[in-house]
Amino acid sequence: MTPHNIANLDKAFRPTSVAVIGASDDATRISGRALHYLIRSGYEGAIYPVNNRRDTVQGLTAYASLSDLPAAPDVALIALPSRLLEDSLTECVDMGVCAAVIYAAGFAETGSDGGQLQDRLAKIAADGGVRLLGPNCLGLLHTGSGFTGTFSSAFDAGLPTPGQVAIVSQSGAYGGHLAYLCEKRGVGVGYWVSTGNEAGTDVADCIHWLALQDDVEVILAYAEGIRDGDTFRAALQAAHDNRKAVVFMKVGESEIGAHAAQSHTASLAGADAVFDGLCTQYGIYRARTTQEQVDVAYAASRGVFPHGRSLGIITVSGGFGVQLCDAASRHSLDVASLPETGRDKLRALNPMGSDNNPCDTTAGWLNDMSLITKTFDVMYADGGYDSIIGSFTMLPDSPTYGDDIRAAIGAGTSRFMDRPTVLCMEARAEVVEAYEAEGFLVFDDSERAALALSALAQLREGFDREIGALSVPREQVDFGSSALSELDAQRLLVDAGVPFPRAVLTTSASEIPDAVAALDFPVVMKIVSPDIAHKTEIGGVLLGIADAQQASAGFDTLVARARAAQPDARIDGVMVSETCPPGVETIIGVVSDPVFGPTVMFGLGGVQAELYKDVAFRVGALDLAEAHRMIEEIDGYPLLTGFRGAPKSDIDALAELLVNVSRFAVAHSGAFASLDLNPVMVLERGVLALDSYLDVSLG
Amino acid sequence: MTPHNIANLDKAFRPTSVAVIGASDDATRISGRALHYLIRSGYEGAIYPVNNRRDTVQGLTAYASLSDLPAAPDVALIALPSRLLEDSLTECVDMGVCAAVIYAAGFAETGSDGGQLQDRLAKIAADGGVRLLGPNCLGLLHTGSGFTGTFSSAFDAGLPTPGQVAIVSQSGAYGGHLAYLCEKRGVGVGYWVSTGNEAGTDVADCIHWLALQDDVEVILAYAEGIRDGDTFRAALQAAHDNRKAVVFMKVGESEIGAHAAQSHTASLAGADAVFDGLCTQYGIYRARTTQEQVDVAYAASRGVFPHGRSLGIITVSGGFGVQLCDAASRHSLDVASLPETGRDKLRALNPMGSDNNPCDTTAGWLNDMSLITKTFDVMYADGGYDSIIGSFTMLPDSPTYGDDIRAAIGAGTSRFMDRPTVLCMEARAEVVEAYEAEGFLVFDDSERAALALSALAQLREGFDREIGALSVPREQVDFGSSALSELDAQRLLVDAGVPFPRAVLTTSASEIPDAVAALDFPVVMKIVSPDIAHKTEIGGVLLGIADAQQASAGFDTLVARARAAQPDARIDGVMVSETCPPGVETIIGVVSDPVFGPTVMFGLGGVQAELYKDVAFRVGALDLAEAHRMIEEIDGYPLLTGFRGAPKSDIDALAELLVNVSRFAVAHSGAFASLDLNPVMVLERGVLALDSYLDVSLG
Repeated sequence: MTPHNIANLDKAFRPTSVAVIGASDDATRISGRALHYLIRSGYEGAIYPVNNRRDTVQGLTAYASLSDLPAAPDVALIALPSRLLEDSLTECVDMGVCAAVIYAAGFAETGSDGGQLQDRLAKIAADGGVRLLGPNCLGLLHTGSGFTGTFSSAFDAGLPTPGQVAIVSQSGAYGGHLAYLCEKRGVGVGYWVSTGNEAGTDVADCIHWLALQDDVEVILAYAEGIRDGDTFRAALQAAHDNRKAVVFMKVGESEIGAHAAQSHTASLAGADAVFDGLCTQYGIYRARTTQEQVDVAYAASRGVFPHGRSLGIITVSGGFGVQLCDAASRHSLDVASLPETGRDKLRALNPMGSDNNPCDTTAGWLNDMSLITKTFDVMYADGGYDSIIGSFTMLPDSPTYGDDIRAAIGAGTSRFMDRPTVLCMEARAEVVEAYEAEGFLVFDDSERAALALSALAQLREGFDREIGALSVPREQVDFGSSALSELDAQRLLVDAGVPFPRAVLTTSASEIPDAVAALDFPVVMKIVSPDIAHKTEIGGVLLGIADAQQASAGFDTLVARARAAQPDARIDGVMVSETCPPGVETIIGVVSDPVFGPTVMFGLGGVQAELYKDVAFRVGALDLAEAHRMIEEIDGYPLLTGFRGAPKSDIDALAELLVNVSRFAVAHSGAFASLDLNPVMVLERGVLALDSYLDVSLG
Repeated sequence: MTPHNIANLDKAFRPTSVAVIGASDDATRISGRALHYLIRSGYEGAIYPVNNRRDTVQGLTAYASLSDLPAAPDVALIALPSRLLEDSLTECVDMGVCAAVIYAAGFAETGSDGGQLQDRLAKIAADGGVRLLGPNCLGLLHTGSGFTGTFSSAFDAGLPTPGQVAIVSQSGAYGGHLAYLCEKRGVGVGYWVSTGNEAGTDVADCIHWLALQDDVEVILAYAEGIRDGDTFRAALQAAHDNRKAVVFMKVGESEIGAHAAQSHTASLAGADAVFDGLCTQYGIYRARTTQEQVDVAYAASRGVFPHGRSLGIITVSGGFGVQLCDAASRHSLDVASLPETGRDKLRALNPMGSDNNPCDTTAGWLNDMSLITKTFDVMYADGGYDSIIGSFTMLPDSPTYGDDIRAAIGAGTSRFMDRPTVLCMEARAEVVEAYEAEGFLVFDDSERAALALSALAQLREGFDREIGALSVPREQVDFGSSALSELDAQRLLVDAGVPFPRAVLTTSASEIPDAVAALDFPVVMKIVSPDIAHKTEIGGVLLGIADAQQASAGFDTLVARARAAQPDARIDGVMVSETCPPGVETIIGVVSDPVFGPTVMFGLGGVQAELYKDVAFRVGALDLAEAHRMIEEIDGYPLLTGFRGAPKSDIDALAELLVNVSRFAVAHSGAFASLDLNPVMVLERGVLALDSYLDVSLG
């Protein structure tokens, strides 16, 4: 079943008929350009220019109004000024047009008047069942059918070369730029869309629809912000389920509500770390630069993804091998040693070359090209590498050896076409294209080659693992007040599966001996009062209480201190807790992202971890596998696996806690602003939250 | 006075006469190629082919031997096999040749036999006063005179276009690759040299000589390792003093002796962090990728460096502005707001555009190009930005507007040619060149543009500050033994200016009351014994001793514990120290780098800082300014400036301590392997080392 949010996108992207409303005879004007493109690109459907002042427009019969058309067109491209849009869109509804594209600018992006008109247009389209693109967008195109519903000057020189890549961009200018760069890089583009102000169709809708198309393998996306977390996640899920590589550039930093920034978690959620977490979660590749985005699209468009991260390196000069090793290490590729069998073969083959990975063949093989064939074969067959980078500098460009080199490499890799072979070279375009035609990826820079391979590995890791939003029933709980006591909050959390040290609430010194009988000493004692937020400041915490006698005295001390500091405070009693054994200090938090909803954070505890912002985020409810990935993602992870001789921490218990917290967060979504468990001590066996702060205010 | 290590490099790079020994008539052979290049490039000096089997070689009169030449040539290019090299080089010495270049491979890089021959060649050259290049190198060239003493196939297509950039590379293949990329990027190259096995001339020597040349502005260097720390530093100093931009790629990770890796400092000095520190210290730009190296060379070759890091951004589409802001932030450029005066002007100028930095002009100015002129003028004049990036996508390539856009930008920037204006565009080569000819830097990628500008700012910061190896007299101290007690070491360090908490050594419980009278309680007590390395393990440390009475009891406790644990241990007494007030825990260390000598490390203390490797290194003795830069360099710096409401730490005292430690390290260079001061507590006033470990073993 087609989700509602992508209804009619079939018709929008691949219409069988198009009306151009307000079509100009002048092909250089915005109102003439889309029509010009449609005609030039040989669009195979019907084209209806609508212009009530001319009989023909750009050589085609013109219609005075939409209602004069012989049939309702699938798409109406509306090249009209703002004041005419409501009537025109209403006409589209009446006529039964499937999708309307509005180019005009001057809407929500300029202020409230424009925003109101935009809202009215959105309502007309939604009520009338018309798929609306824009306003303030450059339209869309489909190279397969020659449908060019765009006036972007990026297509002045013609349609993109068709291919398996789709481009979705909020910014029309950036989208056009990407199309230009893809063309330059030899990356074919099948679909292109600029979503502009997104009154009816947003980036998520387009990604979702494209993810369902058989002729799309890679989706390049650009966004400055995401409107709807749920449809966005559904789109990423669809891309994952259909093994489409999504290469996303999101610019700007997400805004976390000022209110929420009271919590540690929220303050760390800035700089769009939440979006980062979401990308990791769904196996999306997030590109930081345009070059990276196009490089990864190029690599992914070949459709061959490595099974893992082991990398063989073959060079004609040792220096390039060292450089590639450095680059591989930066991008988490593993330049593993060649097994002895392979080393023996390389030694026998080429005594002047190196007999291991990276393999510097030296240039001796120019006299015997079979050496290069056999070197590739040994590296793949004996080394078992998931991919190989071969660095050949300018040699492939040589008019003398060029063809022989290509044949030699081809022969050495032909049995291994299911693994990506990347060649670094500086060569003329036609030489590069010849290699590409044989299935090689070609880069002119070691670093970019390593980055692209790493991206392919990451994308495949995403394809191959199970991803799915876990369904957790929403619990209709009203936490009731912004002054939920620590004790109340802790009870909720204990029920949710958050372990705290064994503790007992005591209400008088006399009950202490019985109450503490079940606890292991030393214990910690804390005053419990809904009116005292910062216990330590009033001396309301006692550590290292050695026995029941000290505990009884401690009760009186704490109550006296509380009364002295805050005479009116209600005192619920004194909490006596077991002392936490030594462990690794971590922090777990939840923040309610304005777009993506309940979001879990994990990081090391302490002021330094906060400083280094070494934290990981995930959106929604997690399963254990995702929780483990989240834990492994932080740079501080080695601290949990037994750093410098320390015992290994109970990572399983930690993962379970993350799962429990995430389920709690989703179940009570909307009922609280943020949660900090800080610190969470990860022990040799088990895990304990030592403090919790649940902010139920919803400012 | 010319330093010894660059003697005769004048003659090597700019010879007035060249002999090619073993010159072949076949221009495609290694032994024929250099001669072929010399002839083809119109080398202006005399060329003497030496070949005892022919009368002419490649059309030139050949000489049977070097001694037959009419005069001693400045340079001998020796294209002979290994077995003939000793005789040939001896002949060069006898003849008075200034410099000899040996191409042959098969020396130190292949094992001991080759290494011995290489050593003999080096000795012949050194004793005979002949500047030796190679062996196993591709030679050198100077485009100005057409001197091409190289057989690198990188110059098959001709000499590089002359320019102010010099290339120095250990790897001939990489050097050739750089030359190719510079040519492709329109970066002119004046000198090129491959140093190969560096038996007589290394990368440092070449950098040093090039730094003294008026026609060199940028030095691109590549090395896999540095041979001599002192000459290398002298070379960087020369480059600094002459304001030459050095853009260095060093691959591979430096090896720290296994012995030294016992100390924390040494374990953190891996991954060539020391080389990083040295680059920072001398204002060298260290490139991690080839693309980065060439981009920065390109930018620096224009010779215009920004005065600071404030950046104006002008775009024709908002999305590119946001992207550039992200890129600027990644590269520490400051996209500061435009002052109100400027904002008023922009509003009046272009109501459709934005009135601040980044300034999205929108494309309205295509109708009135003066808008773009005025926008640049306002941004520079009112914004005072140190540089501007203008992002114009494909517009400058337009046959319609292209020239007008260039004229408009030129008019808006003509008063500000002392600041770098960078333009991002996708355009044909001739369009890019037209902009470059007017002094603009052109990039096709926002990220690369921001990186290059940041590199220029960093280079200029280096030029503008005082850099100089401080001379610290070497003290001939023999630390005597590998079991220097903590107390002995501490005395040395106190003398060197390392502050420890006030302390007193006591030798009996009875002397405690008098001894501790001058100390502030609580105090810390530690057993002092040359035989007990790990005090805490035997319970040899007592914390929080509240008064003299407790201290007297503590003395007995410690001695009893020591005797129980290690009956034979010599006991010097018990150290009683004041307790350190709260502060920020840091670590200061010294390691003796095998190449660069005494090297100081600074970082935050604690296991997390170690995990994140957030440390800074500097080589040799520091002044206060450098110590401050070192402190500010670590990511954890905010912890010292009052993080989350904590008091500001005494950074001046910390800097002074770093200076003192560095001077101690240089003064006692060679007398110890490593020093750890861990932790060093930085207090609100002052700084205290709480523990020290001076390793005087020299494995």
